[in-house]
Amino acid sequence: MIAIDWGTSQLRAYRLDGAGAVLDARERPEGVLSVSPGGFPAALDAIVAGWDADRVLMSGMVGSRQGWLEVPYVACPAGLDAIARGVRSVAWHGGTAAICPGVTCYDADRVPDVMRGEEVQVFGALALDAGAVGSILIAGTHSKHIRVEQGAIAGFTTHMTGEVFAVLKAHSILGRTMEDGTAPRDIIAEAAAFESGVERARNAGGLLHHLFGARARVLMGEIAGRDARSYLSGMLIGHTILAAAPQAPLLVIGAPILAEHYAAAAAMLGIEAHPLAADRATVAGLIAIDRLLQNRG
Amino acid sequence: MIAIDWGTSQLRAYRLDGAGAVLDARERPEGVLSVSPGGFPAALDAIVAGWDADRVLMSGMVGSRQGWLEVPYVACPAGLDAIARGVRSVAWHGGTAAICPGVTCYDADRVPDVMRGEEVQVFGALALDAGAVGSILIAGTHSKHIRVEQGAIAGFTTHMTGEVFAVLKAHSILGRTMEDGTAPRDIIAEAAAFESGVERARNAGGLLHHLFGARARVLMGEIAGRDARSYLSGMLIGHTILAAAPQAPLLVIGAPILAEHYAAAAAMLGIEAHPLAADRATVAGLIAIDRLLQNRG
Repeated sequence: MIAIDWGTSQLRAYRLDGAGAVLDARERPEGVLSVSPGGFPAALDAIVAGWDADRVLMSGMVGSRQGWLEVPYVACPAGLDAIARGVRSVAWHGGTAAICPGVTCYDADRVPDVMRGEEVQVFGALALDAGAVGSILIAGTHSKHIRVEQGAIAGFTTHMTGEVFAVLKAHSILGRTMEDGTAPRDIIAEAAAFESGVERARNAGGLLHHLFGARARVLMGEIAGRDARSYLSGMLIGHTILAAAPQAPLLVIGAPILAEHYAAAAAMLGIEAHPLAADRATVAGLIAIDRLLQNRG
Repeated sequence: MIAIDWGTSQLRAYRLDGAGAVLDARERPEGVLSVSPGGFPAALDAIVAGWDADRVLMSGMVGSRQGWLEVPYVACPAGLDAIARGVRSVAWHGGTAAICPGVTCYDADRVPDVMRGEEVQVFGALALDAGAVGSILIAGTHSKHIRVEQGAIAGFTTHMTGEVFAVLKAHSILGRTMEDGTAPRDIIAEAAAFESGVERARNAGGLLHHLFGARARVLMGEIAGRDARSYLSGMLIGHTILAAAPQAPLLVIGAPILAEHYAAAAAMLGIEAHPLAADRATVAGLIAIDRLLQNRG
């Protein structure tokens, strides 16, 4: 079986043996946004070239309106069974290829929310982790707080953590406040700035005020310009963690270094947390869905 | 007397008669960021050309490190007297030219904050408005909630309202969600989206979650793409207003249409509010400071 994580900006493929071990992994910057309509079969051909790919299961934005085939969202509460029932096949000459559905829910104020790909990571994490999990937080461009109840995704909230960080760094006065990185790094000062940013998220005044404080603290000499990036990152991660009153122990799924930053921030805020690598969660989740599909015949 | 409002992106000049009436006004896109070091006297020459300019009083970023002369901040509580004492003269062959200081304070959590130019608007508003003022909110790129006590600026908080709106619209997925404006405008739908965004600021979940909701609501067909801009604007203004528990009646100072939007948003949130045009407030404030300086001789 081949497991595919096809997101907005990256295409990742994993060749698995019968027991679910990863034999080979490939990654290309051919995310959904960079594939032209009709170009998906060829992009899949290319990334599995030379592999025995008679069975391919994909998750992520490949199932969105901009992807290969729009696969309808499954509504919360969404269990693994419902996800498996929502899988749709696509026409691919190389073998059987299928795409997992996303999940949708409404928040406490009846505003809709959506995910595509993270639901697979949630079920992967549950399959991998025999220990207790209070809440799950998926760290990234659009972070997700996920409530799991009785083995199903009961609800979730998305937070624009990573995207807000990136656009403010690249395009706002906060980016101009940050020096350009030619100054030597000071790991201790960066860590202190990150922690200070995380702690800031506890304060009153709101995020829009806290953001300006990153500028003012540099202006007043309290933080070095080159550490403002860590301060901003800590602040946004702190706000994200505190936005949902997560239950400990918090499982943080994400790219390894990012997940460790989130877990460290949670610990600073008094919430026990453990990181889990996103690719491990994705592969385990696609295997779990594939097994359900195979058992069903 | 000539009153000058010299900000980051704009240079505005007002020629006043002895009673403080505006005889003539000029504006150029020659903000502090676009004037080269040493170029300030010539830029001032150009904008007052042909005017009787023996006395010029300036406020705004012209007094910052990137401006003509760095004028030290006055610490809160800052009264009109303290502002006047902080005014510094600059060498200008055309006559006497001087620059007002900015104001600094610490918020409740000992994080510094700064303003340059808004303090003049506050004293202008107090000079203009004989009625009761509960709180003052200056609307803009970096909005300011200002607490006035016994005629002095007791404290304030800055909120990156306008800048966050601009960078998200131009550079984030929320901008891509907004259609490009070739669709005909629907004023009623835009107003409804704005109000819905303002109301969203009352909800739990935090701004980073509310931001993603703008995307999800368009994706699920609840808001038209072309109205997402108004929804986002209302949300950020609502968060800004609620960040400081302002006291009614709230005086909103800003560019006329923007101040009206803020005042409307405050009303939606149950806070009586009145708009005041920023240029009126600036001119009245510079006049008040000039009178103090003249009386002092």
